[in-house]
Amino acid sequence: MAEAVETMDGWYCLHDLRRINWGAWKAASNQTREAAMTEFQSLISNWETIDEAKIGSHAVYTMIGHKADLMMMILRPTMKELNEAELAFNKSALAAFTTQTYSYVSVVELSKYTVKEGENPEESPGTQARLRPRLPKWEHICFYPMDKRRKGDENWYTLPMEERRRLMYEHSMTGRKYAGKIRQIITGSMGFDDWEWSVTLFAKDALDIKKLVYEMRFDEVSAKYGEFGAFYVGNILPKDDVPVFLHV
Amino acid sequence: MAEAVETMDGWYCLHDLRRINWGAWKAASNQTREAAMTEFQSLISNWETIDEAKIGSHAVYTMIGHKADLMMMILRPTMKELNEAELAFNKSALAAFTTQTYSYVSVVELSKYTVKEGENPEESPGTQARLRPRLPKWEHICFYPMDKRRKGDENWYTLPMEERRRLMYEHSMTGRKYAGKIRQIITGSMGFDDWEWSVTLFAKDALDIKKLVYEMRFDEVSAKYGEFGAFYVGNILPKDDVPVFLHV
Amino acid sequence: MAEAVETMDGWYCLHDLRRINWGAWKAASNQTREAAMTEFQSLISNWETIDEAKIGSHAVYTMIGHKADLMMMILRPTMKELNEAELAFNKSALAAFTTQTYSYVSVVELSKYTVKEGENPEESPGTQARLRPRLPKWEHICFYPMDKRRKGDENWYTLPMEERRRLMYEHSMTGRKYAGKIRQIITGSMGFDDWEWSVTLFAKDALDIKKLVYEMRFDEVSAKYGEFGAFYVGNILPKDDVPVFLHV
Amino acid sequence: MAEAVETMDGWYCLHDLRRINWGAWKAASNQTREAAMTEFQSLISNWETIDEAKIGSHAVYTMIGHKADLMMMILRPTMKELNEAELAFNKSALAAFTTQTYSYVSVVELSKYTVKEGENPEESPGTQARLRPRLPKWEHICFYPMDKRRKGDENWYTLPMEERRRLMYEHSMTGRKYAGKIRQIITGSMGFDDWEWSVTLFAKDALDIKKLVYEMRFDEVSAKYGEFGAFYVGNILPKDDVPVFLHV
Amino acid sequence: MAEAVETMDGWYCLHDLRRINWGAWKAASNQTREAAMTEFQSLISNWETIDEAKIGSHAVYTMIGHKADLMMMILRPTMKELNEAELAFNKSALAAFTTQTYSYVSVVELSKYTVKEGENPEESPGTQARLRPRLPKWEHICFYPMDKRRKGDENWYTLPMEERRRLMYEHSMTGRKYAGKIRQIITGSMGFDDWEWSVTLFAKDALDIKKLVYEMRFDEVSAKYGEFGAFYVGNILPKDDVPVFLHV
Repeated sequence: MAEAVETMDGWYCLHDLRRINWGAWKAASNQTREAAMTEFQSLISNWETIDEAKIGSHAVYTMIGHKADLMMMILRPTMKELNEAELAFNKSALAAFTTQTYSYVSVVELSKYTVKEGENPEESPGTQARLRPRLPKWEHICFYPMDKRRKGDENWYTLPMEERRRLMYEHSMTGRKYAGKIRQIITGSMGFDDWEWSVTLFAKDALDIKKLVYEMRFDEVSAKYGEFGAFYVGNILPKDDVPVFLHV
Repeated sequence: MAEAVETMDGWYCLHDLRRINWGAWKAASNQTREAAMTEFQSLISNWETIDEAKIGSHAVYTMIGHKADLMMMILRPTMKELNEAELAFNKSALAAFTTQTYSYVSVVELSKYTVKEGENPEESPGTQARLRPRLPKWEHICFYPMDKRRKGDENWYTLPMEERRRLMYEHSMTGRKYAGKIRQIITGSMGFDDWEWSVTLFAKDALDIKKLVYEMRFDEVSAKYGEFGAFYVGNILPKDDVPVFLHV
Repeated sequence: MAEAVETMDGWYCLHDLRRINWGAWKAASNQTREAAMTEFQSLISNWETIDEAKIGSHAVYTMIGHKADLMMMILRPTMKELNEAELAFNKSALAAFTTQTYSYVSVVELSKYTVKEGENPEESPGTQARLRPRLPKWEHICFYPMDKRRKGDENWYTLPMEERRRLMYEHSMTGRKYAGKIRQIITGSMGFDDWEWSVTLFAKDALDIKKLVYEMRFDEVSAKYGEFGAFYVGNILPKDDVPVFLHV
Repeated sequence: MAEAVETMDGWYCLHDLRRINWGAWKAASNQTREAAMTEFQSLISNWETIDEAKIGSHAVYTMIGHKADLMMMILRPTMKELNEAELAFNKSALAAFTTQTYSYVSVVELSKYTVKEGENPEESPGTQARLRPRLPKWEHICFYPMDKRRKGDENWYTLPMEERRRLMYEHSMTGRKYAGKIRQIITGSMGFDDWEWSVTLFAKDALDIKKLVYEMRFDEVSAKYGEFGAFYVGNILPKDDVPVFLHV
Repeated sequence: MAEAVETMDGWYCLHDLRRINWGAWKAASNQTREAAMTEFQSLISNWETIDEAKIGSHAVYTMIGHKADLMMMILRPTMKELNEAELAFNKSALAAFTTQTYSYVSVVELSKYTVKEGENPEESPGTQARLRPRLPKWEHICFYPMDKRRKGDENWYTLPMEERRRLMYEHSMTGRKYAGKIRQIITGSMGFDDWEWSVTLFAKDALDIKKLVYEMRFDEVSAKYGEFGAFYVGNILPKDDVPVFLHV
């Protein structure tokens, strides 16, 4: 059968999506709301300390549409710390005014499809930085899970390695066109969540997200082997803007 | 592989669908209901100011059936303004009596399939007006998301450009028959939402919606490559009719 | 491509399915329940006046199983009146004890597959009566939505007109066997709801519903091109039996 | 096209699955709980009277897992009586502490695939007993709905009658091995519910359920034409054990 | 047709997944929470006694993401005892602060694909220990249900026995590489739940779960015949850590 390409794995990753119960939030007292916002900002401050110590990273965005109002993306070195980060939010006062509508558990992953023989990419500082990335503070975020197709003649997992390598290389060329405009984090989730991978795109201009996804849809690997889950899109929520965002 | 056809992109678009909790609404005091209705009308007035300034547009319709009672369609120049418009409604008193049952995030899009070589359609005033449209106040609305199929032999994304162009041209001929009867807004949503495009139809006569969708179903591009999501249909809700609509 | 067969369209149609919250209903006061039942009966009386004036029709059935306890099927000349009928129920006291679990928006439709050349069926009184039908008061009802398949070699929308005509004719022969036993209302819903058509069967003997659907499943048009949604089945609820049905 | 095989139809059947709201049940007063349990036992006593009079039958089981805590399977001669039985439970005090998570409406059915020419099985007492069965009081129950496949080359409804007869005969041979261990009730549900048939298995040893379903999966008719819905499994709840089951 | 391979069956198994209602839990009094935690620990103590007596086993893990906060995996000799274990938790005080989001009913199963002729594996002590296993206390757990595909040319149930044996043998070789790192429990669920099997992986290092699932995806049996449900992942929750986990 086809041979699996080795992966390199970095930090564990949780995408945590929440809908805010605005009615209950408005019905709460000013004091309750103030305390909840302060506690949430303090939680983000803790995350910033971790980020600066390079033992994790995070991103907080407001999301558009009914699927979520808020997304927290959390990176941590272990599954246990990831669980603890989620738990800390769950136990916060703000959490009681939210419903966790979706989440995704994965690990930052780099494939070795484009690695040349003889190379040991895991040792390079660039690889290390990509496996344990500091998430950018760019304006927009897009998150979606995906699978590689396994149906009849369109079966990624029975393709010869060389064919998969060719397709992934072509695909990476499309991505490269958006260097500086889009920052992409790929995570692997087999055994951790319902899809095989997740993709998170950070963009300065929201339109670049659409352009990239649209252009890639014509790459052979996407056209024939890509199966996509729900797409989530949002705008950055700086810690200092939390009170404005939640002001009612 | 197949070459992607460039798109032209205009205003960002949110379809925001709400079910009204009639039981809670009836149980509220007259005063609460009056205040909520006045605030909602004032929100619409703000949207009208934006519409007149040509820095956005909107449409408000009552929807039929269990999927929604109300649809607000909002167009704005940036993703951030779109988010703010949604947030403003979420924070209003009326919102607490609604559930957001569905929504769709996209951007007004024109494809270049029917553009002749040498033309630069983006510069034409007609194109600009279509990318940043003032939504009509027609009696009926129909909204649905859609994909182009990617399955085995029926794969839009592996078709040669010329074949896609031919199919889209044929399709546009069907649409043209309904000029003056149906106004159609196409938005692209790759990277923004779960389907690839959304279609919004405005009609003076509801039956024209059915006739158009039915006739197009026999167009080769729909018959072989169209995958459709849920359909939402409704009647216009002028600002002045809000109190009648919500009177209990 | 294949040519669309023209349709004839009559009254707009809403299937409105409700689950009753029996716990809340029992917890309400006798007075509240009495008032809600009287109001509901008075709503049905209004519908009866419309029915007698031949400017609409309706049917009210109790449904079996978890999907719904009550189905109201409403026919009206315009989409606006349809919306108003739904709204009137939504604003009634009984509605607050129900959840709208499903609904279907469509328009009574007759196809011209079996029309001979030169005929103008739209002018015949029989056609007019079928497009604007007075719904029967038969013991049982069955409602389900359906699509015609569009997959690979089994694609209704690429079949030549003559082939579709042949298949529909064969299908109509099966239906004809149940004349007098089953009354069938077909509605079209492209552009209005998630499936392409809905079928409503009225029967004196519930077993005839099963026999008809079973026998038709072997018709080539169903076997190869029919895709079916959920099936809803119920018993007639005469206006005078409302208090017994709702007695707790 | 393929010819439909006639069916013989007996009693109407409702599978009624309920989840118990244990939190609310615990929060209720002792008196409320006592009254609800007594009323439920009295409802079962009524069903027993019907069972003894051979004008219906029933089975009550506790179910395992999140899908349901309780399943009532009710057989009645008419759809109206079936509806009344459901309604009687819905109006009981216990019902207010339950959510109806699933249900299935069907009619006991025997096919004539294995009937020899010249025979008239409907007249035999054995057939009558199978169409209007007294449900056994065996330890375990398994319930699931199913369809026959209609996809491309695997289309039950286009197979010649003789081929269907052959496949059903082979299938019945597998079932026969479990005589005395498994009692099987087949019901037809075309026009009544979302799948085409339901299967209910009663077993003395739960493992025989798994063995039968596993072995049958290799029968050609299941391997190629069987599409299965959710499976529900449970243990018998004798009337006298109701207070123990519901004791908190 | 293809011949079914016999299975060996051991203890019945319930995976019970719960989301905690953190808002309600925080709103409860200290006393209520203390009592609920003590009762839950005492329930686990009972399970430990059963585990030590080798008449059952269990595992308790905190889960990551929106699908569940807590998973209890319970093994018991009979379906009745399994039901009683679930019921005992349902009736506990903690349960009222949880929602049962998913569950899975199955029985520990070993197939005989790799058994040589003449062998009687059921008699060996190793087989007995695997059929009635004491669940390990390893750091991480992964649980997912799965089917073998039955579609067109990719139909597990029509493959000759020898081909299935070959594929299962290859598959077992991949698993063997993870000996000491991953402990795998396979359960069969035909007739008991919606998928055909469940897989539970225990790991010391969470990354080994991903590596195993990823590598196996390229095994022919998974690539062509594996259909997977949702994946649940979590960290061990020792009884003594319950108060820390639930501290708010």
